[in-house]
This record gives sequence, structure tokens and C-alpha cells, in this order.
Amino acid sequence: MSLHDDMVLMGDQAVAASRALARLSSRRKNLILEAMAEELNARREAIKAANARDMEAGRQAGMSPALLDRLLLSDARIDSMIKGLRAVIGLKDPVGTKISRWIRPNGLVIQKVRTPIGVIGIIYESRPNVTADAASLCIKTSNAVILRGGKEAMQSNLAIAEAMQAGGARKDLPEHSIQLVATTDRDAVRELVQLEGRVDLVMPRGGESLIRAVVEQARVPVIKHFKGVCHVYVDESANLDMALKIVENAKCQRPGVCNAIEKVLVHEKVATAFLPKMADLLTAKKVELRGDAAARAIVPSMKEATEEDWYAEYLDLILGVRVVSSVQAAIEHITKYGSHHSDSIIAEDKKTQDLFTEEVDSAAVYVNASTRFTDGSEFGLGAEIGISTDKLHARGPMGLEELTSYKYVVLGTGQVRE
Amino acid sequence: MSLHDDMVLMGDQAVAASRALARLSSRRKNLILEAMAEELNARREAIKAANARDMEAGRQAGMSPALLDRLLLSDARIDSMIKGLRAVIGLKDPVGTKISRWIRPNGLVIQKVRTPIGVIGIIYESRPNVTADAASLCIKTSNAVILRGGKEAMQSNLAIAEAMQAGGARKDLPEHSIQLVATTDRDAVRELVQLEGRVDLVMPRGGESLIRAVVEQARVPVIKHFKGVCHVYVDESANLDMALKIVENAKCQRPGVCNAIEKVLVHEKVATAFLPKMADLLTAKKVELRGDAAARAIVPSMKEATEEDWYAEYLDLILGVRVVSSVQAAIEHITKYGSHHSDSIIAEDKKTQDLFTEEVDSAAVYVNASTRFTDGSEFGLGAEIGISTDKLHARGPMGLEELTSYKYVVLGTGQVRE
Repeated sequence: MSLHDDMVLMGDQAVAASRALARLSSRRKNLILEAMAEELNARREAIKAANARDMEAGRQAGMSPALLDRLLLSDARIDSMIKGLRAVIGLKDPVGTKISRWIRPNGLVIQKVRTPIGVIGIIYESRPNVTADAASLCIKTSNAVILRGGKEAMQSNLAIAEAMQAGGARKDLPEHSIQLVATTDRDAVRELVQLEGRVDLVMPRGGESLIRAVVEQARVPVIKHFKGVCHVYVDESANLDMALKIVENAKCQRPGVCNAIEKVLVHEKVATAFLPKMADLLTAKKVELRGDAAARAIVPSMKEATEEDWYAEYLDLILGVRVVSSVQAAIEHITKYGSHHSDSIIAEDKKTQDLFTEEVDSAAVYVNASTRFTDGSEFGLGAEIGISTDKLHARGPMGLEELTSYKYVVLGTGQVRE
Repeated sequence: MSLHDDMVLMGDQAVAASRALARLSSRRKNLILEAMAEELNARREAIKAANARDMEAGRQAGMSPALLDRLLLSDARIDSMIKGLRAVIGLKDPVGTKISRWIRPNGLVIQKVRTPIGVIGIIYESRPNVTADAASLCIKTSNAVILRGGKEAMQSNLAIAEAMQAGGARKDLPEHSIQLVATTDRDAVRELVQLEGRVDLVMPRGGESLIRAVVEQARVPVIKHFKGVCHVYVDESANLDMALKIVENAKCQRPGVCNAIEKVLVHEKVATAFLPKMADLLTAKKVELRGDAAARAIVPSMKEATEEDWYAEYLDLILGVRVVSSVQAAIEHITKYGSHHSDSIIAEDKKTQDLFTEEVDSAAVYVNASTRFTDGSEFGLGAEIGISTDKLHARGPMGLEELTSYKYVVLGTGQVRE
């Protein structure tokens, strides 16, 4: 069979599985997830052995230490996958719940009921834990899933997927509910994202180039974020001590993630008071500062920021710094250069806060808090399948509800239309 | 300028307008809509004159009487557009409302707030009233709109759009909030649906071929339904008098629309009692019946249905008829041949009803009611911008809420992530 035929078959199998999954009770799905957790634990040595093969191939291919670290499955990381599965068991199943219900003057009872989406494709890079995390969230919401991991993690992903399939099978998980694309052929991604009528949604997770490739090839809906160019704006009304703590946290606590900040905008009236303290604090933390002329006039040790810097997602200990004349100028900057992910204002003045939250068109807009909270767990969603900067279907952190659709179930007593 | 440059400029103008629109109060938007209604009334003769030019060109091009009728703008139809605008004024503005709000253990207040989507493209065919209907719903929800009507209605659409722009301008509607693509170049559609980063959503409304063309070319999200192959299933537990009335209504009341039924499935235990009565009733209404072997054994005057008939959307007084052995067989038929739009079961048995509503994966699933109710007004949404058989963002009739997205507004007191 050709790759195309293989992928179409995989799609057909997923559709059949999704119909069977939709019939499972929450109790049954939890039994399945528990069996998967047990099987991951039982196959721990086999999973580590498979991972060791990926690691060895990665070393021979000259993978960077950072990438090798992302690829590694230690006992602690396997424990963490198992713990994640059990956390999903504890979450409320949204499928079947009534979102709303009303009665029309003619007596029709209209109910809006949550349903699974159907078949979801997940395309991801090196971290093998995504295999377990994404599959468990899909199964909990009765969605069949087609997983396509990075080739560097293929052995690890296969071992994890096989463990979950085997655990699920013991509790009557419909066959083909979890499928992993086992070829390293890059064309498989294109085939997957063009399976119209079979795949209902694709979620790419990884670097910007992976996501752009998926979006360009896709014929099915895609939910994604390309990147996180997040900002903290320090207003003239800011509590500057609070601003310092938030900037430090948002930049340094984990600089390589999408909700870390890449830029600080400071109101000109507090720039002289704020920037030297910020520079001292961040320089001690090994952050490289790149400022505009006004910022460098106050802190001459800053490098000069270029126009490209304002667009950049560093994912590193680098921070762009700009002095602005007003909250409106800050909003303009964020609108032009930002990625509509997460942006925060530090301000005590209520009107300024409101202007910022109303006009900044980002998935998450913060007042007096770190952007690092844009995360399913931190929002209290219990889990996260991804973060969306799209405006349709789901925006911001996506949990279980965002993996559902709805249908109208309309109950009548013989009503016909006049 | 090239067509491409023209469309990019239109997109940029729409983005700027959408930002200004997002700042308008509900009161201001209602003043704008009222001024538009007044202007449509004031320009009634100019609109009819423009329409007369379209009608004349249509006659010369040999347009069918049915298409010419869809194109015609009578005084009654202009009144109806104006009434429609005033109905939209009366609806509640969803933008800015809080969908939900919760407080995290660390004190963060997380609010999910409705926002406009941004820029919406509407691609439609001959009926010029869509220009007013779609634009008014977009303005009410603070979305900028780019309209692309059919070339046969160009003069009418231009006259309506100009009236709405002029009315809006009197009440400070941001410039470029409503734009109409004034070229008949077919490539304009392709350019429009590839305006990534400028157009947030495209909704094609029209025949299946138009919609397929849009989906194939699109780089931006599209919400649509291709067609409506809707079913009534008459169960063995059905009240057969009720079933007759519902089948008649769903087939005959307006056969050319997407929520009319194209097929009736009848349980074998009631086929002998039901089908002759149904055939008498529908034949008197000039409906052509096309049955499977079992149906024709009971009503020999039926034509023979082919495999293609089960997939067909006739949009005409034709009905496919099949005898099935169980509700499960009916569900299988609907899953295989249906379009996931609207399907109804006529049954008194509660368990059978529940099985049908759970397993039929359509935007609207009915019990003992006509499928003709799948409509924004009939559902009580107040208005309708379209009907979706997609599973993402919106499913079924789409009203004002479905023209919104949301963002998270998170209020803190200095929280940083541990």
C-alpha cells in the first residue's frame, strides 16, 4: 500500500473507533485510563530500553544536550506520565453534559449537549511524554487520536503507545482509538492533515517551523499557536516593587517556554526609577538586555535593540526593553509586534488597567500578574492539550472542554413548521 | 495595483476597522444599525433601480425564473431587510459579557470574556438581502466584514452596501467596517480566503460547488455546511399520524432549503401501515417517491432508488424511501449517507429516542419534530448568519454568540509562578 492508502486506512479506523468511543461511559473510560497507567508502569523497563535506543541514535546524530535532555525518559519522567494519567482520571468528563437548555413558545425543548469532536491528530516534536498526555486527554473526551511524534523519539513513542493500547485493550478500549504513525516519512504529516472527512482537528505542538508547515498543508481545521512574544507593560501607576518581581518571574523562571516574556515596556515617567533596578536584578540573573535609545540613555550597558528584536521570540535569557509615552503606546506596540499570546500590565490605576485589558487582543491579558500563568493547570483546567492563539473554537490554554464540540438535541411532541 | 494588492489593502483596512469597532458601546452600535435601516429606506428607489439593472442583465444572460426570483428586490423584500436590521438592534450584544469567572487558590481572578472574532469574510450567491443581513450581524458583534456577493447581484449589493456605509457614517461607524468586493474577478475569492493574519473567519453561503471551491483554496478558518441530506426515521413505536404530518412538513413546506428532508427511513414493522398513507399524501403534493425494494413491494408506484439516491440532496419534491430493520440500521444509514445536518426520529419509546439522539452525530437531532426548525430564528437565537455542520467553534444555526471569540482577563495582586 502507498503512504496515502496507509493514512486513509488509519483515518477510517480512527473514525470507526471514535464512534465506538462515543458510546463509552465515563466510568468505563476511567477504567481504561487506569489500566493504561498500570501498563505504563509494568512496561517501564521496556520503555526505558526503547528510549535508550532513541538516545543513542540521537547522540550519534549529534543532537544537542538540551534536545537529548528533552528526549530522555527517566524513572521520574515515567512516574510523571503515570501521575498525569491518574490526574486525568480525576477530572470531570465533559461529554454528554448539557451546556444549555431552553423551551420555545411552540413547546420544542432545545438542548445543547457536549459531544466528542471525533478524530484528533496530534503532531509533535521530541518530548515523548506528549504521547501519553495527549492520548489520555483524547480518550477521556471520547476522541480517537492519531499521533505523529518526531522521528528522534520514534522508539520511545512506540513503546508508550503500545503500553497504552495494551492497557486499554484489557478494559475494552475500541481498537484503533490510539494510533501512532510509525513511519518517519515526512509526507505522512501532509497526508494526515489532508484527511478531510476523517480527521476533525489537527493540533501541532512544537517549533514555529513545524507549525507553519502544518498550517500550509492542512485541509482540516488546525488549532495552534505559532509563538509567544509576550510583554509586561509597567505603567506610570505601577507598584515598582511588584513590577520587578513579575518581570523577573516572567523572564527568568523558565525562559524557554511560550508564556515567558520577551519584552518589557516601561512608561517614561517611571523609566528612570525602574530600569536601573530591573537591569541590576536581571543582569545578576544573566539576562542580556536590548533597549531602545530612551532605555539605553538610562541604562547605557544595554545593547541596542533592532526592529527585528521587537518581533523576536528569544526563548532564552534575552529581553527587549522599550520606553513608551503612554498605555496607548504600549497597546500599539503589543498589537504590532506581539503574538496575541499573553501580555500583562502592572498598574494601580483602574482605568488604565481596563483600557489595557479591553484593547489588548491576546488570548490571556493580565493585570498585576506574571504571564507564566497561561497554562491549563495554573488556570485550573486540570490538564492541557495545548495553547491556542487562534480565535475560533478555543483560545488560550485548552483543557478537556476544548476537546469537545456540541450538538443540538431537540425534543418535540409533533411540532411542524408553519 | 494588482488584485492581490487590492485584497491585502482591503484586509488591512478591515483589521484597522475591527480594532475601532471593538471599542464601540452597544448603544453606539444600535444607533449605527438604526441609521443604516433609515438609509436603506431613504435609498429604496436607488436600490430598486440598481436591482433592475441586475435583473435585466440576468434576463439577457438567460437566468432561470427561479434564480431571477431570488435576485429580485421588491418593496416587500426591502421592507424585510429593514425589519431584519431592527430585529438585530433588539438583540442582546454578546461582546464584553463574562462567560465564566473563577478564583484560583493563589488569588488570581480568571475571567473568560466574549470578544469579537475580528474580520469576517462572507462569500455568497444571488440573494442580495444577505448583504444587509450578514453586515448587520457582524456590526452588532463588532466584527469588520468583507462581503463578496455573486456577480449577478453586483449592482444590488453595491447599492445596499453603500446605503449601510452611508447610514453608519452618520453615526461614526469606523471607516471600512463594511467592505464589498467590487470586482467580478473570480480570483478575488481565492485572494480573500488566503488573507491569513487579516481575515479571521470565512463563511461561504451558497451551493455545494461554491463552498467546495472556498474550502479547497482557504488558508483561513472556514465555517460552513456543504449540504443538507436530512432524514426522518419512523420507528416501530411511532405515532403514525404524527409521523405523516412531520414527513409532509419536512419535505413539502419548503423543499429547496437545507433543512428539508431528502429521505424517510421506516421500521419494517410499521412499513405496511405507514407507507401507503404517506405515498397518498405526498403524491397528492406532487412529491416523487424513490424507494428500495421493500418499500416498492408495499407501494409499487414508487420509482426504484439507486445507491446515488441515498447520498442525494434533491432540494426538490423528490423523496428517497427505505425500509429498515431497526433503529440501529436507521442510524447506520444516516451515518453513512447523511450530511450531519438535521435528522429526526418519530418514536414514542424513550429508550429508542435516546439511542437515536446519542448516536446520530448531526448538528441537530430531533425527537418527534420536523427538521425544518434548524434555523436561528426558530431556535430563538434571534438571527442567523449561517448553519454549520462543522464541529469546531460553531455547530448548527449560528447567531450572534457564534460570531464571538473570547479572551482570558486575569486579575492579580502581584502573583508570580513558583
